Amino acid sequence: MMLVTSGAVAFGKQRLRHEILLSQSVRQALHSGQNQLKEMAIPVLEARACAAAGQSGLMALYEAMFTQYSICAAQILVTNLDFHDEQKRRNLNGTLHELLRMNIVPIVNTNDAVVPPAEPNSDLQGVISVKDNDSLAARLAVEMKTDLLIVLSDVEGLFDSPPGSDDAKLIDIFYPGDQQSVTFGTKSRVGMGGMEAKVKAALWALQGGTSVVIANGTHPKVSGHVITDIVEGKKVGTFFSEVKPAGPTVEQQGEMARSGGRMLATLEPEQRAEIIYHLADLLTDQRDEILLANKKDMEEAEGRLAAPLLKRLSLSTSKLNSLAIGLRQIAASSQDSVGRVLRRTRIAKNLELEQVTVPIGVLLVIFESRPDCLPQVAALAIASGNGLLLKGGKEATHSNRILHLLAQEALSIHGVKEAIQLVNTREEVEDLCRLDKMIDLIIPRGSSQLVRDIQKAAKGIPVMGHSEGICHMYVDSEASVDKITRLVRDSKCEYPAACNALETLLIHRDLLRTPLFDQIIDMLRVEQVKIHAGPKFASYLTFSPSEVKSLRTEYGDLELCIEVVDSVQEAIDHIHKYGSSHTDVIVTENEETAEFFLQHVDSACVFWNASTRFSDGYRFGLGAEVGISTSRIHARGPVGLEGLLTTKWLLRGQDHVVSDFSEHGSLKYLHENLPVPQRNTN
Amino acid sequence: MMLVTSGAVAFGKQRLRHEILLSQSVRQALHSGQNQLKEMAIPVLEARACAAAGQSGLMALYEAMFTQYSICAAQILVTNLDFHDEQKRRNLNGTLHELLRMNIVPIVNTNDAVVPPAEPNSDLQGVISVKDNDSLAARLAVEMKTDLLIVLSDVEGLFDSPPGSDDAKLIDIFYPGDQQSVTFGTKSRVGMGGMEAKVKAALWALQGGTSVVIANGTHPKVSGHVITDIVEGKKVGTFFSEVKPAGPTVEQQGEMARSGGRMLATLEPEQRAEIIYHLADLLTDQRDEILLANKKDMEEAEGRLAAPLLKRLSLSTSKLNSLAIGLRQIAASSQDSVGRVLRRTRIAKNLELEQVTVPIGVLLVIFESRPDCLPQVAALAIASGNGLLLKGGKEATHSNRILHLLAQEALSIHGVKEAIQLVNTREEVEDLCRLDKMIDLIIPRGSSQLVRDIQKAAKGIPVMGHSEGICHMYVDSEASVDKITRLVRDSKCEYPAACNALETLLIHRDLLRTPLFDQIIDMLRVEQVKIHAGPKFASYLTFSPSEVKSLRTEYGDLELCIEVVDSVQEAIDHIHKYGSSHTDVIVTENEETAEFFLQHVDSACVFWNASTRFSDGYRFGLGAEVGISTSRIHARGPVGLEGLLTTKWLLRGQDHVVSDFSEHGSLKYLHENLPVPQRNTN
Repeated sequence: MMLVTSGAVAFGKQRLRHEILLSQSVRQALHSGQNQLKEMAIPVLEARACAAAGQSGLMALYEAMFTQYSICAAQILVTNLDFHDEQKRRNLNGTLHELLRMNIVPIVNTNDAVVPPAEPNSDLQGVISVKDNDSLAARLAVEMKTDLLIVLSDVEGLFDSPPGSDDAKLIDIFYPGDQQSVTFGTKSRVGMGGMEAKVKAALWALQGGTSVVIANGTHPKVSGHVITDIVEGKKVGTFFSEVKPAGPTVEQQGEMARSGGRMLATLEPEQRAEIIYHLADLLTDQRDEILLANKKDMEEAEGRLAAPLLKRLSLSTSKLNSLAIGLRQIAASSQDSVGRVLRRTRIAKNLELEQVTVPIGVLLVIFESRPDCLPQVAALAIASGNGLLLKGGKEATHSNRILHLLAQEALSIHGVKEAIQLVNTREEVEDLCRLDKMIDLIIPRGSSQLVRDIQKAAKGIPVMGHSEGICHMYVDSEASVDKITRLVRDSKCEYPAACNALETLLIHRDLLRTPLFDQIIDMLRVEQVKIHAGPKFASYLTFSPSEVKSLRTEYGDLELCIEVVDSVQEAIDHIHKYGSSHTDVIVTENEETAEFFLQHVDSACVFWNASTRFSDGYRFGLGAEVGISTSRIHARGPVGLEGLLTTKWLLRGQDHVVSDFSEHGSLKYLHENLPVPQRNTN
Repeated sequence: MMLVTSGAVAFGKQRLRHEILLSQSVRQALHSGQNQLKEMAIPVLEARACAAAGQSGLMALYEAMFTQYSICAAQILVTNLDFHDEQKRRNLNGTLHELLRMNIVPIVNTNDAVVPPAEPNSDLQGVISVKDNDSLAARLAVEMKTDLLIVLSDVEGLFDSPPGSDDAKLIDIFYPGDQQSVTFGTKSRVGMGGMEAKVKAALWALQGGTSVVIANGTHPKVSGHVITDIVEGKKVGTFFSEVKPAGPTVEQQGEMARSGGRMLATLEPEQRAEIIYHLADLLTDQRDEILLANKKDMEEAEGRLAAPLLKRLSLSTSKLNSLAIGLRQIAASSQDSVGRVLRRTRIAKNLELEQVTVPIGVLLVIFESRPDCLPQVAALAIASGNGLLLKGGKEATHSNRILHLLAQEALSIHGVKEAIQLVNTREEVEDLCRLDKMIDLIIPRGSSQLVRDIQKAAKGIPVMGHSEGICHMYVDSEASVDKITRLVRDSKCEYPAACNALETLLIHRDLLRTPLFDQIIDMLRVEQVKIHAGPKFASYLTFSPSEVKSLRTEYGDLELCIEVVDSVQEAIDHIHKYGSSHTDVIVTENEETAEFFLQHVDSACVFWNASTRFSDGYRFGLGAEVGISTSRIHARGPVGLEGLLTTKWLLRGQDHVVSDFSEHGSLKYLHENLPVPQRNTN
């Protein structure tokens, strides 16, 4: 690690200003008020004098800061000549290597006191000179064959047009060949050398074999530690690279998904269905190729992934067959999605308003190891006319690639191949979650940890998904003996890893020490469910199971928390306090109690005498499931295709203006509801 | 500003470790490998020696850092005795005052080298001693009569139970009387003195007359500058205060709005309507009191607010009357909102699913100077059964207070007074936008700048509102001469400050230099609309108006951008590139072109031969308007009461479990759509 630092001149300017004031005559000092110090006119200071005065203070600051970490720093002052004179260059090189060998951080600066003042705008025809720190750093990076040169500025990086103009976009990766596509704006506010000089220095360093990142050092975007972020490969600033990757950038992919999606949305519903049917056929027709690609993934993952993950990663003929069946169902249900009229109003004579369903726009679907997610999500996006960016797990690379190719093949029968894009660029998931101008909705498909991470990372883009499923079942004092064990077993044991599995059983106090209670416990023992006792439940027992750490736990396994409540109201309060508003159930024979519970529990799904596991798009009869949402806006609970749609309002008039409807205008609002074509009811 | 600093011991430990290694025999050094330094066992270092060794390094660091800002620092080392001995105390006091007078920052630390080592857990019965920096700072703050003592730690502040436990909440303001409600967790990881010691020191300082804030110095939450945030009164850490404010905290208000809202939601629709009718009556009955309060606001604002803002702030009898009329409309339309059945499905015999509308939960409505917003928003919240937190502009304090009291009076006729809360605590708007556990939806009502600010500040809470209304009108080559000027005038001139006013006029190239074109320009001249030329338009003219700075501008005034396009497709592309997806219009007589435009423009509202100004909830016939949303999920375009509702799924079974529906189970899914009660059509 070497450091090229600015700041000596600025540091020195402050110091010299102070000294000048102190050296003024006593008379002046006596006459000056308290705030005079700030207001006094300060003579223009010579930059070289400032640099000399500031250098020691600057070094003292670095010294003190590095000392905190027991790191030793060394000062190196260079001039242009040190690079041109072969002997001097070798000396410098040797000194720096010696320092680095001893884990000492060289702090390098131009020896401003002895060089002519910098002239930023006169350049020696592209020959790099050590007139600013950017050039110095570039020269040093090449001389020392560094791995990476990081140029920190007060702007985010390199933009394709002056920042602030209509279409200015930060360039993520800059290739020397693309240089023409950039127009430079005004200089950076701090230090010498605007962006143009920085880019020139960067390109020079790149030619010399050093990769370069230009980034904002003052407002680090990701974690607050810009250097760490860059070294970890996060998408920060502009990366200068010699090697242009084969594919498009993620921004280009976003554009393609946007325009492809718009074309998809204007197709006839039958055409969208055709694409999905074709994709279903391809899944079975191209089975061998798909399984071959999947085999590659499996082989590479062998030994590196745990057994359950391997199982999720693997595809089989039967998996592909059922995928194809699922896709055909989506195709069938897609006929009635986009362009459905929801509401029609006659606002005035010849002025009719229509609310119709339209796609949301561009979806980003992030899925973990399961490659079978890809065709399913693709079919949902096609059915709803949305553009789609897919980001799959690295372990499924080969499988995802072929499945994506098949999706594009299916799309191309109606010329909308580009509506679905598979993101393979260096962007991490968190990077994608910040592209708020490109993406309208993020759908994470995977563990609740994934959902939580993405909800945290998404900046200004809505995320659809449930981060937790802490489902409750309340067994009322009037519950039927026959039903309870059946319901508890199904809810907890049928598939404990599901988000709609039971996590907390609330039992009415009156049921404690009854045969019914023993029956539940016996069943749980037989099913090998580990019981955790809530604090109240524990207090009722002489020997209780281990007490829960938190009543707000999603076990996702054969574990169950049992707590005692005194009434249906206490059960409701408990659910509101500790639940995740996913699915909550009451078991009772008393209809009044049941209705009270159904009305008062504020969750996405509230059931009476039914298993929590019914909380599912397919079981609800919504057709294809997009996911289960615990969000309170847009879609809530199991989400079908409708969750991927929004609406727009179409108004058809003749030459209607609102001023005609004013108090003394010629027209009155009619607001007649007009009949809407009835929805296809299966 | 005085600084009490930790770090000398830690600083010294590192230095001494290093020195010990260096002082070992040469033989050892020769035998040690390169990484030996880190691995070698280090003898236990004596804290006092460390302190002595570290003090100079620590001071050098502060010195170097303060020098950057031309600030002089001074070192003060004190012991317990310096406070007990009257003479010493007076000396210390005098020295510090002298330094402060000279704008020098005293950096104070215990003279660790000469005091006995600190014993954190033995305390002299509540008597504060200078054994840790928290106590030292408290003592110093009282001795020097400081305004504020800021105690920086590595935790957020004081929690009511050990951080990490189920219900741990950060205490915003701590009053000495509340001490019992806090249980302390383990010590802070850095430095002496856990939170208990910090709180003791804070209370001691508070008794001595100094306010105290305990906050996290390592991960500043708001702007990244914790001290600035605190001094600016932002909601950071825990504030210790003697004076308990009369009202509840915002967290308590959130709880009240939540539970009050839940009660409101379970009322009968007629009861909710009754409340709103009653509020409408109160607005006219209590007119004099309301106008009196408003007069106070107006008097205080006089001279401080611009004329248009004053106009918005002022209430009048006629304003109140029309408010009351609006409220009665909301009451009438509220009958059919909460609890409406949207979908019914028979999943199996005796297993019926129902999707019903329910309130979203707790809304936060932020409005600027207009006090008439309050009753309107209150009525919308009541109609939709939502809890409501209101944050109004400071300039309308008196008006808001009385209007809120009237809303609560109306609510109390059905015992749900607490459902609507007016936030009057020290929280800034940005503070409120971070309360994601309390608030389900934020609705900013005001300028687009307000909306943008809030969208930026909201962390994990959805915001409903349009940040920009850049509306376009495309005049096709087949547009009718008679209609155009009427439509353009109404869209641009009728109320230019509205978000649905026209901002960019796109004209087909064929219309240039036609009489129609001249007619439009003449009309704009007459209406005194300032014209900005798009780059293409400018290139067609010999003498063009000033060219636009950006095609993406919301003027909100009598200014209009004119640009030329070659085709309807180019118009659509322009709208997609520069528009804000609010409202866009085509003027043409060609139905085919019109339908192409209606289908392809991806905006919330797309019109044919109608003014942009129709984009409005009332004009659309949606009844009360919540706002206009340019978001792509939940509600889009003009939003009526429905935008304040979400849904929940109710499933009523007998003892249904999903395992009965498995491949070999006894039951099959029916998924029959059942009839839904038809919607009240006016």
